[in-house]
Amino acid sequence: MNSSTYKYIDDNFNQTISDLKRLVAQPSISAQKVGITECAEMVAEELTNAGLIAKILPTSDPAYPVVIAETPDADSEKTLLFYNHYDVQPPDPLDEWESPPFEPFEKNGYIFGRGISDDKGPFIARLAAIKALSATTGLPPLKIRFCLEGAEEIGSPGFHEFLEQNKNLLKSDACIWEGGGVNWDGRPLITLGVKGLLYVELECRAASRDSHSSYAPTVPNPAWRLIWALSSIKGIDEKINIRGFYDKIRPPLQAEIDALNSLPDTDSEFKKDLGVEVALGEATGFEFRRRMIMDPTCNVAGIVGGYIGQGAKTILPATAKVKVDFRLVPDQDPKDVLNGLRQHLDENGFSDISINVFTSQHPSRTPLEDPFVNLVASTAETVYGSKPYIQPSMTGTGPQYPVQHILGVPVASCGIDYPGNRIHAPNENINLDYFKLGIMHTAELINQFGSLGK
Amino acid sequence: MNSSTYKYIDDNFNQTISDLKRLVAQPSISAQKVGITECAEMVAEELTNAGLIAKILPTSDPAYPVVIAETPDADSEKTLLFYNHYDVQPPDPLDEWESPPFEPFEKNGYIFGRGISDDKGPFIARLAAIKALSATTGLPPLKIRFCLEGAEEIGSPGFHEFLEQNKNLLKSDACIWEGGGVNWDGRPLITLGVKGLLYVELECRAASRDSHSSYAPTVPNPAWRLIWALSSIKGIDEKINIRGFYDKIRPPLQAEIDALNSLPDTDSEFKKDLGVEVALGEATGFEFRRRMIMDPTCNVAGIVGGYIGQGAKTILPATAKVKVDFRLVPDQDPKDVLNGLRQHLDENGFSDISINVFTSQHPSRTPLEDPFVNLVASTAETVYGSKPYIQPSMTGTGPQYPVQHILGVPVASCGIDYPGNRIHAPNENINLDYFKLGIMHTAELINQFGSLGK
Repeated sequence: MNSSTYKYIDDNFNQTISDLKRLVAQPSISAQKVGITECAEMVAEELTNAGLIAKILPTSDPAYPVVIAETPDADSEKTLLFYNHYDVQPPDPLDEWESPPFEPFEKNGYIFGRGISDDKGPFIARLAAIKALSATTGLPPLKIRFCLEGAEEIGSPGFHEFLEQNKNLLKSDACIWEGGGVNWDGRPLITLGVKGLLYVELECRAASRDSHSSYAPTVPNPAWRLIWALSSIKGIDEKINIRGFYDKIRPPLQAEIDALNSLPDTDSEFKKDLGVEVALGEATGFEFRRRMIMDPTCNVAGIVGGYIGQGAKTILPATAKVKVDFRLVPDQDPKDVLNGLRQHLDENGFSDISINVFTSQHPSRTPLEDPFVNLVASTAETVYGSKPYIQPSMTGTGPQYPVQHILGVPVASCGIDYPGNRIHAPNENINLDYFKLGIMHTAELINQFGSLGK
Repeated sequence: MNSSTYKYIDDNFNQTISDLKRLVAQPSISAQKVGITECAEMVAEELTNAGLIAKILPTSDPAYPVVIAETPDADSEKTLLFYNHYDVQPPDPLDEWESPPFEPFEKNGYIFGRGISDDKGPFIARLAAIKALSATTGLPPLKIRFCLEGAEEIGSPGFHEFLEQNKNLLKSDACIWEGGGVNWDGRPLITLGVKGLLYVELECRAASRDSHSSYAPTVPNPAWRLIWALSSIKGIDEKINIRGFYDKIRPPLQAEIDALNSLPDTDSEFKKDLGVEVALGEATGFEFRRRMIMDPTCNVAGIVGGYIGQGAKTILPATAKVKVDFRLVPDQDPKDVLNGLRQHLDENGFSDISINVFTSQHPSRTPLEDPFVNLVASTAETVYGSKPYIQPSMTGTGPQYPVQHILGVPVASCGIDYPGNRIHAPNENINLDYFKLGIMHTAELINQFGSLGK
């Protein structure tokens, strides 16, 4: 790539940061339907400013539109699709933020704010790369498309149908996904898949109202009911006891094991960052990352019942709820897990516990040997100056399954992340050095995308 | 009793209701330290208005003073003590109240408000009886004392020491306790003891901050830790597995079994009132009330961890807490239970779970054959026109143990309660007919107290 492009990225970095802060300052909390439409409009405006033709399209739930965009050049031989999302996680617990979540705060080479890393920073980085190329060497002859969802953090409801209905507008040869960046050691990290997700809320109502806790000898307690049901679902050995849960898991390929072996040990940094002394199963090294990347989970994301205020209140709650998320790996099917969960509850005497499904997404993986993976890796090596790690899957979830299956394209994640970015947690942040490297890598990748498959 | 006293109670009933509403409108939430001092002052004022000499005395925690009072007559042969408390439970969940908890609301012969039944109504009823006697026949030659606590709802911290230090000021021959009133069928109900209480908060912190739920394969989840610990403490069979928990329980006396047998079946009304179809253990009739009155419990009063807002948030919480209350029966010792709980957690691999003690109270019972019990019963029969039920113990807790052991007096509960009063829950209320009967019974009891032991 022409050094003038790099210089442009450098010279305009303050403007890029300013664009990013403006976007982060616009709340867009999909779980609470806060600021979604406003943010979609701001995203379309940013795309237009970068020279793309943007459209805001409704999904089956009009509260969560998708923003798509494309470069005007109609005769391109190849098309590169960028997937991002403009919604963010709820910011709470608010009292653990060191600065207000929607007032981006810059300090010592970092910027803090809800959604700055997941996923507004990556989006702005891509636009910055496009602007830099346009202003210097000009964009190479390819079409660039964007697709930004507004409901990714609540499990992309309607996104599958949206892709089916609009697949011609999103026809591409490859897709760059959100996520990716650098590992703890600063070497670039490319990831090739996502875990699936089944996110449910279990609720038990045992009485029509809260009562005095002296009624405990005779009145069923819904908190106890959930505790016992949850214990039966997963025991202290971390085994998930839903019948058939593990049956469809694809055994790891040798290429995947090799890739896992090539990844560095990160458990020490990880544990230090989270203040955890011993990982589950005392896992370290290969086993630690194998679990993170290849294992399904059953996580309690939230539980509540009864009196949770200050001091003591002797009540017997009428109702209790728990939010549980299952991360799934190929080829587990969220529908099977949901059916298995219902069956498990019924068979263990918990028919009184209801299940409310919030999210259901399939796992997905792009094969390690795909030529697009090589292109993403080689351009990363050029920019970062070190060989990238290639991770067979992200540890998180996104709607890659419909992109792979409806658009039929390989998907890889590269971007601006680093392991301390605290996504989904208080004090989410980006590192400005990695932000700039992510912009440069995107510019390099766009520049060389024409060579794909040649 | 002179019929002029009854007439006075009737004629002044609206004033009594107005006094009660004023007291209920003054919040006094001990768990949140809201309005305690203001309420103590209002209570002293009410006592003074009824002709008693009142004092507000500090306890070891000056935030929770005790109000004591006595009638001026110094030469009385006998002394009757009334125990009440002026603090109330927190009002939440607020959205389940049909009228604001601290704006007493009268409707169809009921008044709703936090603390109106527990325990401000009973206190005002006693004063109304004293006023009626004073204004008509005059009080008989006995001393009446009052002792009102401000921290009963948080387990009476410091009350034991207060009684030790002030036992001369509270020297009495018998004590009327809070609670008691009528059963579902309108017949008077007298209770003779209390369960003990150990109220603890268990907390598990597994990481220094919340993290993304994709970390679940390796990062310990404190909500799961609590779920497994709780499951080990009490299983679905409702058996409490803390070693030695049941060892010190006194086998029921024949007189207690006879008393239980004499009580009416209440399980149907109970279940209907709470919207519960089947009681624990499918208990009905004798077994239902035996459990309620004689069994210890382990209740989850509140549990919280992670994201409990609207919609889905994929986090792995750093911390989780559960409030657990154990109701104890003679001669269980809350200290033993606490030690057993710590030992149980440690032995089952849960040393990472901390215990914070909020309340620790011994169980207590007054013998069924005490002459004071007969007096309370016979005066009830006179007023209510039906033979009272005598219940060997309340199902709830109060600091009776120090009263029995430091003052050395028999303790019985009679008052204005009825089973639909929803104490500790939204829409707490009193029934005005039972309120008036409670006033009359108190007047009758005071009138005949001189005959005790003669």
